[in-house]
This record gives sequence, C-alpha cells and structure tokens, in this order.
Amino acid sequence: MHLFYRVSSLPSWRVQIFLSEKGVQYDSTVYTIAEVKSKPEALLKVNPRSRVPSLKDGDVDIYESMAILTYLEQKFGALGPSITEPKARARVLTRTHEILNYFTDVAAAFVRPLVTGQKDADAFKKYEEFVVELKTWEGYLNDANYVACSDFSLTDTMILPDLYTLERFGIDFEALGFHKIHDYIERNRSRPSIVETFPKEWLGTTSPHSNKIALFVEEYTKYKNGQQ
Amino acid sequence: MHLFYRVSSLPSWRVQIFLSEKGVQYDSTVYTIAEVKSKPEALLKVNPRSRVPSLKDGDVDIYESMAILTYLEQKFGALGPSITEPKARARVLTRTHEILNYFTDVAAAFVRPLVTGQKDADAFKKYEEFVVELKTWEGYLNDANYVACSDFSLTDTMILPDLYTLERFGIDFEALGFHKIHDYIERNRSRPSIVETFPKEWLGTTSPHSNKIALFVEEYTKYKNGQQ
Repeated sequence: MHLFYRVSSLPSWRVQIFLSEKGVQYDSTVYTIAEVKSKPEALLKVNPRSRVPSLKDGDVDIYESMAILTYLEQKFGALGPSITEPKARARVLTRTHEILNYFTDVAAAFVRPLVTGQKDADAFKKYEEFVVELKTWEGYLNDANYVACSDFSLTDTMILPDLYTLERFGIDFEALGFHKIHDYIERNRSRPSIVETFPKEWLGTTSPHSNKIALFVEEYTKYKNGQQ
Repeated sequence: MHLFYRVSSLPSWRVQIFLSEKGVQYDSTVYTIAEVKSKPEALLKVNPRSRVPSLKDGDVDIYESMAILTYLEQKFGALGPSITEPKARARVLTRTHEILNYFTDVAAAFVRPLVTGQKDADAFKKYEEFVVELKTWEGYLNDANYVACSDFSLTDTMILPDLYTLERFGIDFEALGFHKIHDYIERNRSRPSIVETFPKEWLGTTSPHSNKIALFVEEYTKYKNGQQ
C-alpha cells in the first residue's frame, strides 16, 4: 500500500490517522503544495487530478479522502462501532459528514482571511458561526470521551486534525470557554496515532499567524461590549 | 423507515434513487425550502440542524446525504460492485466523491449566477471549468454504460440528479458535443428509479431560466471566435 500525501493537509492527515489506528504498514510519498501542483508523474498515474491524498493498494487506485476512508473501513473494519450497532454507526457517519459539510468549512471561512491578512467585512459574522459550531461539538463531548460515541471512531479521525490546526493558528479553546474540546485535544495529544502523524515542524514552534486570532478575538469582544 | 426530503434537491434525490433501486418501502415527509427553513418540529427531532434529507429508521436517526447513503449501503448492500471487487468498488467510491467535490460544485458555480441573474465577472472562466468537468465524465462513459463501472452504482445515483437538473436549466449536452452524456441521460430517463423520483412538476414544462444558458453559450462562442 502506497500513500501519496502532504504533511498537515486535513484530508491527508485523516487518512494517516486511520491507517495508524489500524496498524497498517504502508509506503509513502510526501509532497509539498508546490509539488502537488506541478503534477508529478507518479501521482498522476494514480490520480489524474493530481491531488492528495491518493492511495495505491496493489492494482487498486483510489483518491478523494472520504472515498479512501470508506474503502479502508471496508477493507480493515470500521473504527469504533460497526454496522452491527446501527445507532452508534449512524451517529459516527452523521457526525463525520457534519465535520466535512459544516465544521471544517465554517472554521476555514473564519480563519483563512485572518491568516492570509485579507480584510473581511463579514469577519464578525463568520466568527459567530464558528462559535455556534464549537458549541455543537462541545455539546457532543458532554455525552462521551469521543465526539460520536464511547470509542475512538472515524469521526475523531476527521475532527482532530481540524482542532490541532486551529490550535496551531492561535485558537485558545480553553480561553474561549470550550473546556470539553480543550480536554479532548489534550487527552488525544499522546494517542499513538496522533503522535505518529502530528506535523513534526509544528513541535516546539508557534505559527507566525497565531497572534492574529488573539487580536481578532480581542477586537470582537470590544465590539460586543460596545453593543451592550 | 421515514425519509424527510425536498423535491428536486440534489442530496434528497440521490437518497430517493438509492431507496428505489433497492426496492425499499418507506414513508416520507416532503418539505419546500421555506418549510425546511422554518425548522418543523418533526424534522428537528431527527436532525437538530433542520436539513434534508434526514432519515429515521426505527430508533436510528441519520442525516447528511452521504452519511445516509453509506448507512443504506451497509444495511441493504452496495449498489453495483461490492467490496469483494475492490478495484471496481474503489472506482465507485472515488467517482462518487469526485462528483461531490468537483462536478456538483463546478456546475453550480457556473449555473447559479446565470439563473439568479447576477452579473459574474468570472462567468467565462467558470464555464470553461465546467466544460473540463464534462469532458472528464464524457471520458468515463467511453469505457462503460455507467459512470463508474458496467453496472448502475452509487456513482450513477449521485450524478443523474445533477445532469437532469442541468438539462432542466437549459444545458443541451448534445449541442455542446457531449454525446455520451446525452445518450446516458436519455437511456436512464426510463429507468424505474428515475421515473419514480423525477420531479413531477418538471414533466411537460420548461424552466423559466432555460434560455439564459443558451444565450450565455452564444455569447461565449462569439467571444471565443473574436479571440481567434
């Protein structure tokens, strides 16, 4: 099995965590963004769109992270509850797609303009939408140690890369009052699949953008206080 | 089993086709967009986000169309190749997510501004990206009668609602030279799952927007000819 991936890319990271959780041994090719865009021949052979993650498993070529994860679940068994527990399985699937369709997009819509230094007229509104999402996931963690059920599941594989990336960019979940999310992040930091896949260059360094989020939250708080 | 859905919504339609292909009997509640936005109590009980499609299967609540489709595949068996045919299965999964992540978005990015009457400075570029996608799918149909393999699969469930919607909005695949896509659309029009799920109000009527696409394609052709 050969994985083509990019360090710290959310879709790549999710596949790496899954493979690590299942103890699957695999070879890999690691690309930078620029390399992926240059359409390397080895990648094009597996994925004509030249995107990562892409996976070669014998004579099987597969790409798009959710397609890869579904394929791996069918090959190695589900992470967490299986189809024999339909209620828990349905919750894992629903929350997995809630991350893809809401959480990741809403977080990126707020964080990306700040990180790239663009002025965004809707920044306050986007931040409020992000806080609503955080409240939803904080609520999910009231019920259990993991975001979909009592075991580590596909849903945790999906959201942990988001949360560590947000932390890297300066979101302080504890300071914002999301204590369950904060504890969840801390608890999983030492999980072997996270240790193994965590971007090495993030260790012991801070993002050059991390103060921008703090400044924004300060500005937002002033604005809200001024409104009252 | 009870499906909450909206007529002609792509995610809802895909789930309806799957259930019809599998011959699953189910009850349903049909909402308009306005009704979904008003957060009806019955829907909120199944899906706190008040979105469709949402599914209640006994005591199992599940939402997000791709979560529902994965759940249904696990409950009733895959449409088309199963996990015992890994190569074909990988192609079905990959192309299913290519539709979600490329085709649907690229088509909507081109069509939506035209339909809503917004001026779009990037309209030519978006149209060209849409044509690139159409070429990709036309190519996939060179190999087989269906878009992922020799049988009707999950991938066909995903793309047919897109294609009938684009046709409704005035895309003439034949005139644009996409003969394989045109034949594919025509061939599947009489398929029982399509007949059963096709929006009744579309039969024998044309969209009030359908001439906008034709006018745009004319304008684009003039522009390209002028460039030469």
